[in-house]
Amino acid sequence: MIEGVCPFDLGLRQPGEWASHANCWIGWPERPDNWRLGAAPAQRAVAQVVAAIAELEPVTVVCSASAFIQACALLVDHPSSPGQCAQYPVRVVELSTDDCWLRDTGAVFVCGAEPENAAQGAGVHFDFNAWGGAQGNCYAACSLDQLVAKKMLLLERLPRFWCPMVLEGGSISVDGEGTALTTAECLLNPNRNPTYSQNDIEKQLRAYLGITKVIWLPYGIEGDVDTSGHVDNMAVFIAPAKVALHWDPADHRCQAAHRVLAQSVDALGRSLEVVLVPAPPALYRQPDEVPQVQPHQPHPEHADTSEPGASDSDSYQRRAGERLAASYVNFYRANGGIIMPGFGLPESDEAARAALQKALPQIQVVQVPVAREILLGGGNIHCLTQQQPVISEPIPWR
Amino acid sequence: MIEGVCPFDLGLRQPGEWASHANCWIGWPERPDNWRLGAAPAQRAVAQVVAAIAELEPVTVVCSASAFIQACALLVDHPSSPGQCAQYPVRVVELSTDDCWLRDTGAVFVCGAEPENAAQGAGVHFDFNAWGGAQGNCYAACSLDQLVAKKMLLLERLPRFWCPMVLEGGSISVDGEGTALTTAECLLNPNRNPTYSQNDIEKQLRAYLGITKVIWLPYGIEGDVDTSGHVDNMAVFIAPAKVALHWDPADHRCQAAHRVLAQSVDALGRSLEVVLVPAPPALYRQPDEVPQVQPHQPHPEHADTSEPGASDSDSYQRRAGERLAASYVNFYRANGGIIMPGFGLPESDEAARAALQKALPQIQVVQVPVAREILLGGGNIHCLTQQQPVISEPIPWR
Repeated sequence: MIEGVCPFDLGLRQPGEWASHANCWIGWPERPDNWRLGAAPAQRAVAQVVAAIAELEPVTVVCSASAFIQACALLVDHPSSPGQCAQYPVRVVELSTDDCWLRDTGAVFVCGAEPENAAQGAGVHFDFNAWGGAQGNCYAACSLDQLVAKKMLLLERLPRFWCPMVLEGGSISVDGEGTALTTAECLLNPNRNPTYSQNDIEKQLRAYLGITKVIWLPYGIEGDVDTSGHVDNMAVFIAPAKVALHWDPADHRCQAAHRVLAQSVDALGRSLEVVLVPAPPALYRQPDEVPQVQPHQPHPEHADTSEPGASDSDSYQRRAGERLAASYVNFYRANGGIIMPGFGLPESDEAARAALQKALPQIQVVQVPVAREILLGGGNIHCLTQQQPVISEPIPWR
Repeated sequence: MIEGVCPFDLGLRQPGEWASHANCWIGWPERPDNWRLGAAPAQRAVAQVVAAIAELEPVTVVCSASAFIQACALLVDHPSSPGQCAQYPVRVVELSTDDCWLRDTGAVFVCGAEPENAAQGAGVHFDFNAWGGAQGNCYAACSLDQLVAKKMLLLERLPRFWCPMVLEGGSISVDGEGTALTTAECLLNPNRNPTYSQNDIEKQLRAYLGITKVIWLPYGIEGDVDTSGHVDNMAVFIAPAKVALHWDPADHRCQAAHRVLAQSVDALGRSLEVVLVPAPPALYRQPDEVPQVQPHQPHPEHADTSEPGASDSDSYQRRAGERLAASYVNFYRANGGIIMPGFGLPESDEAARAALQKALPQIQVVQVPVAREILLGGGNIHCLTQQQPVISEPIPWR
């Protein structure tokens, strides 16, 4: 761990998601109290995501010791599995989580901002409270999630900056040139950092991620209660000065985001081009999808601890009829391509795909049609993943 | 996984332990039914081994999710821990084991035997039955140990050869030029591969490790019942045609080994130089060391499975007065040095250290004086470790 100095002091900042990746980290859904039917349908969907990403870059899927054999069976062992067929290696690594959302629990990587230090890098480990701490988090016991970033960085032998601010990677989207998008609904929510002012948060984003300009959208999308409105369902940078916006013209949240984006300039003073990505129709949890979720049982790794909430029924109860946080902008930007959700809605899926493909004609836009299974767990492809940029010179940490 | 071809077919073989290492893998003692006082004294001893090795090469310590925080506290987090002070990075990686003996459960690495393929490499994953299967193994439930080699190779993105023969890495010692030492007591024991003849075993060693000549010692050392007489307590190659022998002139096992070594030639027809390493005096388990070992409890990762024996008291019962398998030749050969056990016996420890230092004057010989704590668990420094040679070209496996 690096102490006494921040990434910004060393000329590091979070690159845009389009910067060249060495690896994509993905979590493996396991919690039967969040994923229906013991997570089996979600696992099959994630295997399709892995297959699509592995056509473009190496993938690391992390799972618990209990799930290892089964994850390997779906991902690397069978001749038709992604790891056997794909262009890049897929590895399955034992690394336990409370849930699989590595976007939010994983390390956020930072790299040299200037040509002379572009190969340098490290990871930032933010505090994590399961999306809300005592005020409505998704589960009370999150000590495994709190270690994910540390485990990733130890495994990669990369230096680690610890930041005491609660921050999930999905609550920001950066351009790699000093600008971040976020939402006030999430980052100013008292359930994350109740003692921090907006200015305190901006200071930490500057110190740890090299963000010199924050563009504050008011809200995340309708239905995204799990995350208190993460920006990665609403609006994400797809290039410098170019933002993909989840767009339902009748939705006041989208309208508000559009107004802010239209009026904003980035850290370098540029106006933003806004690419409208048509939102899917409103999607709801179906009655038959609810009883397939099991009552909470403590994770084996929590069972013998005294962690508060570890043995209580501490996870969100999923209800029939509730709005799902469905968004096409929750995609992963891999090397040379975008892997985006499809919800099995031919017209809507194609309209969103076409909008992104038109905005980025030089890269592949690939849709994984079974993303509803991932959505039922509360997030989507971007939430599952965390890109690791190419870092050939870990910054010295001793 | 690579199927349909063996390492020997591709010109690969297991290098000598002195070949340049990229990494040393070490297991973390955790089982309270094998390690006294909840394994705390053994963990402190292993931290000293890690510190010594990390002066010479990078180290990876593997542990369960339950042990991760505590292992990090001893190994990487504190300013005085090995990972902070050592010359090379120490990483702690979540990788669950039934017990910590990576020499026997980990991948055995193979590399190109000829100059033109010297940078190539892969790993071999042997079957494992906890040192004896139905006939007196150390514990019945060993499904985690059976996955260790696979997890190591996935983590390193190295190709994997699966070999259906039961073999522990500590049952052989190789010269990297086609010769292996082993014991008939272990490798011909019907508790490993009851359907294999001696010829079958030699064929598999040739196919998977490139061994063209096996030198069969009759026995391992007195007291080494856990392993059925692993050679790495009795005699190990320290250079081509040079063997370090555990030496008690009054012990018929040592005499027998000496006779065989004196009469043998290696795969290249060379006679062997035998370096006598004076054995420690007979060491016994003390009465106060026994009650500190707890009754068996199932591993959390086994608790919810139907694995045979998983919930039974299935581990060896340690008894006061039993002979300990104490040997100074159970050392680890790191880059440029040897990390060897010391038992807190000034005369005996120094005699063994001096014998090895004299035999290998060009490298450091470092003694870790607290190795009795490791010995109480059934093995020693060599048993805990597995070297990973430098492999810059993983052999193609698709």
